[in-house]
Amino acid sequence: MANYLQMWKDLGMDIENHDNLCAVLPTAFGDTYLSQENRPAAMDFWDMVVADIHGIRPAELIEEQKKGRKVFGTFCVYVPDEVVLAADGIVTGLCGGSQFWVPDGEAVLPKSTCPLIKASVGARLGKTCPFFRIADMYVGETTCDGKKKAWEILGKDVPMHIMDMPQMKRPKDYDKWVEEIKEFAKVVEELTGNEITRDKLENAIKIINAKRKAIERVYQARKADKLPISGKDVLLMTQIAFFDDPERCATMCNKLADELEQRIKDGVSVFPEGTKRIMVSGTPMAIPNWKLHHIIETSGAAVVCEETCTGTRYFENLVEEGKTTLEEQYRAIAERYMGINCACFTPNTGRIDDIIRLAKEYKVDGVIDVNLKFCCLYDTEGKSVEEALKENGIPVLGIETDYTDSDAQQLRTRIEAFVEMLG
Amino acid sequence: MANYLQMWKDLGMDIENHDNLCAVLPTAFGDTYLSQENRPAAMDFWDMVVADIHGIRPAELIEEQKKGRKVFGTFCVYVPDEVVLAADGIVTGLCGGSQFWVPDGEAVLPKSTCPLIKASVGARLGKTCPFFRIADMYVGETTCDGKKKAWEILGKDVPMHIMDMPQMKRPKDYDKWVEEIKEFAKVVEELTGNEITRDKLENAIKIINAKRKAIERVYQARKADKLPISGKDVLLMTQIAFFDDPERCATMCNKLADELEQRIKDGVSVFPEGTKRIMVSGTPMAIPNWKLHHIIETSGAAVVCEETCTGTRYFENLVEEGKTTLEEQYRAIAERYMGINCACFTPNTGRIDDIIRLAKEYKVDGVIDVNLKFCCLYDTEGKSVEEALKENGIPVLGIETDYTDSDAQQLRTRIEAFVEMLG
Ligand code: SF4
Ligand code: SF4
Ligand code: SF4
Ligand code: SF4
Repeated sequence: MANYLQMWKDLGMDIENHDNLCAVLPTAFGDTYLSQENRPAAMDFWDMVVADIHGIRPAELIEEQKKGRKVFGTFCVYVPDEVVLAADGIVTGLCGGSQFWVPDGEAVLPKSTCPLIKASVGARLGKTCPFFRIADMYVGETTCDGKKKAWEILGKDVPMHIMDMPQMKRPKDYDKWVEEIKEFAKVVEELTGNEITRDKLENAIKIINAKRKAIERVYQARKADKLPISGKDVLLMTQIAFFDDPERCATMCNKLADELEQRIKDGVSVFPEGTKRIMVSGTPMAIPNWKLHHIIETSGAAVVCEETCTGTRYFENLVEEGKTTLEEQYRAIAERYMGINCACFTPNTGRIDDIIRLAKEYKVDGVIDVNLKFCCLYDTEGKSVEEALKENGIPVLGIETDYTDSDAQQLRTRIEAFVEMLG
Repeated sequence: MANYLQMWKDLGMDIENHDNLCAVLPTAFGDTYLSQENRPAAMDFWDMVVADIHGIRPAELIEEQKKGRKVFGTFCVYVPDEVVLAADGIVTGLCGGSQFWVPDGEAVLPKSTCPLIKASVGARLGKTCPFFRIADMYVGETTCDGKKKAWEILGKDVPMHIMDMPQMKRPKDYDKWVEEIKEFAKVVEELTGNEITRDKLENAIKIINAKRKAIERVYQARKADKLPISGKDVLLMTQIAFFDDPERCATMCNKLADELEQRIKDGVSVFPEGTKRIMVSGTPMAIPNWKLHHIIETSGAAVVCEETCTGTRYFENLVEEGKTTLEEQYRAIAERYMGINCACFTPNTGRIDDIIRLAKEYKVDGVIDVNLKFCCLYDTEGKSVEEALKENGIPVLGIETDYTDSDAQQLRTRIEAFVEMLG
């Protein structure tokens, strides 16, 4: 990370503190990623992006802002990118995945708040993340208690639009979500100054669908018996997808998928034969949260699927294309997003179905159901997840963790024992 | 508590474990309540109700069920009693306020769930509360994360209807709440077999309004310089209001108010002159949670108001009477309930306004803002509450507690220091 000092200063960042972050990230990345052997060549792209994560993409965003485009920061896979893109806006994910930001979040939030929320609020208030400085507007949602209250704090500091998520999935909740998306569209039109037309929205739907399909291709390759890519690498790809230009993202993911498909033909694998196949389910893993994947993949197992919002919940299901009116398009968008099974809904039985289905599709030997500490939703739901997996004869290990390293050794012991047991 | 053994057996209760509860409650009540001096004579009624809390009222409910009436168990002051009453149904509160039930709740819920939820789930699953056995239907709501997930667990065991609470207070959220209330009305009509008519609903609205007015009269009496009643006694009255027949409740509260008004005329007070006046704000206190009030009132201060759901949020504002159509009535009901400022809304600035207003109306010397451990909503909002009170020159002490006794001594020390500081 270099040469971006002036940009960071212009963004009003806390340079001194940010230097501390810059000092540790490359080592963390090197230890976790560059130590892997025989990685797909196409991963070079993501390595480069991470190496300058607070430089390259932020500089691009600022360039676009100079041309008049607006940047929307989001915190949940329920916020529809299509709408922003249709108005020539740009979406960037804003979820914080590092312990570095947690103390600044704890200055204003209860300690017993989930680390994702604490890190996100801390990244903003501590002025140590350029993306949080660049966004012209934050888009929140009423998904969980911690976020509902976090918006009140962030809203004092930055323009904020909140989408009221339905809490259930009855027919009328779909209608409600259509209305909420239409209201969001108005807000986006206003801030960007660009009208959303049927054709622009159709184009945006196609772009985001193409991105989803490209990511899905990479995931498909993980169904192979000989795994052509590590779970860590796929996680990185997905994490960056939240920040990148969607068309470039699709291109890069497709390039990676090409290589993986060739590897499958050639019988090339990054894991020895017989490596146990693990699916991770549960709470999202925002960049640079690679902790669990790293422990699993250095404990004799491979992660073959993530049933998380930085996994299947991000790309599964497409928005139906070819609708002829905006009204129909907004409904198609609503329907696609309502297909995401987040624990914030009551009930949320669809998620159990997803987990069982994915476990079979990806031929997993076991599931690690992970909960970010103090996420009451996924924690409580974890019990039903474990029960359902056991009923289906699929071994499961439930764990709870946060962004600190303090439990790493203990997790490793438990995960090693779990993997051994799968033997 | 006696003579109800057969009833408890018929209800399928865990008699042995329930005996343990019966063994401790009277002592707890005696220590907390009967030790007070010069209590209003009208409190006899509530003393009697508590003495047989698992007997008298449950027996009444069962009698009514035999006549064909249905009992609806609720967990939130947002669920409109009027609708149930209009269909000749009965409402009983079901929030658990004792540590006794927590372990049974922790068997299925994360430890880091708020004690109110753990106790409520535990009271059901442990079969140690007759009210939880009697209710024909539970009515949940999508207010907080813990409750959303708790309904999934309770729903396996008992018929459950869930009202989807709006998460915000925009005009369209009022519309949404009207629809949700109408849907609830249909469910109530179905279960009771009774149609809700305009006249029946008008009658129900009047009955519940009368109850609110009666409780309000008692609260008015607490604005007097010479306090005619302790905070503990008022808390008990309000807690029982959730379980009692609304018309009897109004009669009894009015009788108490008569006595209190006479005491004010006569200059009779239960506290020495100069006793510091405390308002408690924050999370609800379900029966038999008297912990904080007891500590405050044995630390040289008096509780003069509760800005909680077992306080002002329960009775303030009336439903407008005299509407001519059901549609208008449902809207009037929705509007009254949307006036409740719960931390589950984002934003929730109305609550800050309430707190400042109440602090002035009740001439408080200080506010104790209390949070039930792991209630993320009120915990996070507590920061804004404290800031607002400080800006208004009102001393405030923020505390967090649960249902255990383990922090009682520490709380006492902090509260004594706070009260002294008010000196
Ligand atoms: S876990 Fe739920 S709230 Fe979080 S990003 Fe996913 S859908 Fe949104
Ligand atoms: S992990 Fe849970 S608590 Fe954290 S932001 Fe997501 S839903 Fe909310
Ligand atoms: S605190 Fe909120 S969720 Fe709880 S009873 Fe009151 S209004 Fe309902
Ligand atoms: S106190 Fe908080 S966490 Fe507990 S039930 Fe009420 S709103 Fe939910």
